[in-house]
Amino acid sequence: MKVNGHHYRTIWLKENDPQTVCVIDQRYLPHEFVVAELKTSDDVAKSIKDMWIRGAGLIGVAAGYGMYLGGIEAQKTPNFDNYILEVSKKIKDQRPTAVNLAWAVDKQLEFLKGKTNVDEKIQALLDGAQWLAEGDVEFSKKIGEHGLKIIEEISKRKNGDTVNILTHCNAGWLAFIDWGTATAPIYFAHAKGIKVHVWVDETRPRNQGANLTAWELSQEGVPHTVIPDNVGGHLMQHQMVDMCIVGTDRTTRTGDVANKIGTYLKALAAFDNNVPFYVALPSSTFDMNLTDGVAQIPIEERDAEEVKYVYGKLGNKVEKVLITPKDSNAANFGFDVTPSRLITGLITERGVCKANEESIKKMFSDLIRK
Amino acid sequence: MKVNGHHYRTIWLKENDPQTVCVIDQRYLPHEFVVAELKTSDDVAKSIKDMWIRGAGLIGVAAGYGMYLGGIEAQKTPNFDNYILEVSKKIKDQRPTAVNLAWAVDKQLEFLKGKTNVDEKIQALLDGAQWLAEGDVEFSKKIGEHGLKIIEEISKRKNGDTVNILTHCNAGWLAFIDWGTATAPIYFAHAKGIKVHVWVDETRPRNQGANLTAWELSQEGVPHTVIPDNVGGHLMQHQMVDMCIVGTDRTTRTGDVANKIGTYLKALAAFDNNVPFYVALPSSTFDMNLTDGVAQIPIEERDAEEVKYVYGKLGNKVEKVLITPKDSNAANFGFDVTPSRLITGLITERGVCKANEESIKKMFSDLIRK
Repeated sequence: MKVNGHHYRTIWLKENDPQTVCVIDQRYLPHEFVVAELKTSDDVAKSIKDMWIRGAGLIGVAAGYGMYLGGIEAQKTPNFDNYILEVSKKIKDQRPTAVNLAWAVDKQLEFLKGKTNVDEKIQALLDGAQWLAEGDVEFSKKIGEHGLKIIEEISKRKNGDTVNILTHCNAGWLAFIDWGTATAPIYFAHAKGIKVHVWVDETRPRNQGANLTAWELSQEGVPHTVIPDNVGGHLMQHQMVDMCIVGTDRTTRTGDVANKIGTYLKALAAFDNNVPFYVALPSSTFDMNLTDGVAQIPIEERDAEEVKYVYGKLGNKVEKVLITPKDSNAANFGFDVTPSRLITGLITERGVCKANEESIKKMFSDLIRK
Repeated sequence: MKVNGHHYRTIWLKENDPQTVCVIDQRYLPHEFVVAELKTSDDVAKSIKDMWIRGAGLIGVAAGYGMYLGGIEAQKTPNFDNYILEVSKKIKDQRPTAVNLAWAVDKQLEFLKGKTNVDEKIQALLDGAQWLAEGDVEFSKKIGEHGLKIIEEISKRKNGDTVNILTHCNAGWLAFIDWGTATAPIYFAHAKGIKVHVWVDETRPRNQGANLTAWELSQEGVPHTVIPDNVGGHLMQHQMVDMCIVGTDRTTRTGDVANKIGTYLKALAAFDNNVPFYVALPSSTFDMNLTDGVAQIPIEERDAEEVKYVYGKLGNKVEKVLITPKDSNAANFGFDVTPSRLITGLITERGVCKANEESIKKMFSDLIRK
């Protein structure tokens, strides 16, 4: 998507230096556009852990590139396979809730199977990383196409009046490689000339909505309004939201989704006000072993400092200000689980399906272990 | 309640200077404890509008003192009654949602009835303001006593284990004169040695939870944890909340409540997880003319800058940092309405009643216009 009018992806190999991975360092957005260079698998692990990059798709692809950089390191070690196994564990450990981080790493390990010489292995890891990236883009586009139809229908029903869409956190292109998931239908609709307006939940504590989604939408010229996370219920009570679209980091075979903390509250409000609530997702977020999201999905607890301090721009610098009494405790749960009963539909790369086991099984039977 | 170990109220007449009203300037909390001096009715209006002081009870009492300062000013004008009527309008206009701002002003106008000479009028306004303040404290104490019983019961059911209470915004003593409403039962329980722990919603955009409620609880030594507004649903899904208590700025005769934006979302989550959801209120927040809160209560829209900027401490100074793209729009609705069907009970100065017209009529028949 566009940054200052130029097309970018969120991750790419440096031109003329295929051993350096470039990413948009999202910690500086929306105030500065900074590209970070990752040269080792440790760099990649750190960039995931410390959230230079984040988002289901992007950390999956970054994990793929991390494995590739791990392969380059591995050739200098006595045992390539042992080293790469260590790298795979290290990368998986960075974010426990996101299922396609593990999925991407496992894909890379699969690609190594049958490869015997080191050059072949490194090439397999490079090809694997690029396959992951291209697949991510392809999936986002398909999600955009399928979701577009839903927006088009609402637009028709409103006789072309603006379609108001609420989203939480950032399941935008910054969370993937291009287009995004929750945002893909919005970008497709906007490109087609359908009038859309996006209510952007700021998404405390890390403000990915205010920092990233608002920035993305600005860059693409999509009308939007940033709102505190507290506001969506009020808007829905007053018919100011036509639909919600959010992303997911992990989806059960029964259609429960683990997404950014606070998603559940918006789903409750949507349900209470008959506002359609959609979750956009690539099938890599399915964890087909799980049947009860609330009971079974581990929820990452992050540093309480992320709650106590807020980052923002002061003059020309980004500063971190304290917003609680210095000695008050804070708690920082990264995700919550929205039960499938509150979800209108799942917008996937294969089409839109209901958030229940039967529909998911029908559309994704090949992903379910026999 | 206590500030650095000393007892304070939120508003008082300056010692040896009964024409100066002192308030705790809440814009500086939790980082600095600043007392502001209000010398004119304009000062009072400004302090309400710009939220040096806020909270249903406190702005009511401040309005009372504002009328008194208006009376002092009025004696220098050609027509006392005209001037005081202007003052009453000016003060009412500052915050349209809070019903007891208007209620307090009207009470003061009532106290003027039958008074003919100016000294008598000013004395009536001073007495009125002090009556409002004492009444507020008395009501908070009663709410504390009635709410205490609910907490005691939960504590017994948990065999003395910690009772986890979630609150939104600040309906603490800082919102009133002393004790508060939502916090009064908590302070009473804590004083009685019952183990309580409070989940404090930070309450974006103005962070009254993180700034004020957390500070209050710290000063009183009540265990608490600040959480982003997104977190409560997750906690309730995992049995980490035993009850919610919030305040209200305006309550319909049918039991709907208008409270700080985001309250509705917490009520939905409480309902979905069978967590008791209580609203603590003095009867002055009743607007007995209203029967449908969502349709009838006007919701104040505030400056979008409050959403785009966050105040916090940087080094030794309180600074304001930008958290959105500079040019993104933001929207700032001050309140939302929680329908009575989601509310377990109203904790009032007269006792606990159900949030429905029948129960409210029974307990407050004298407040309903015939």
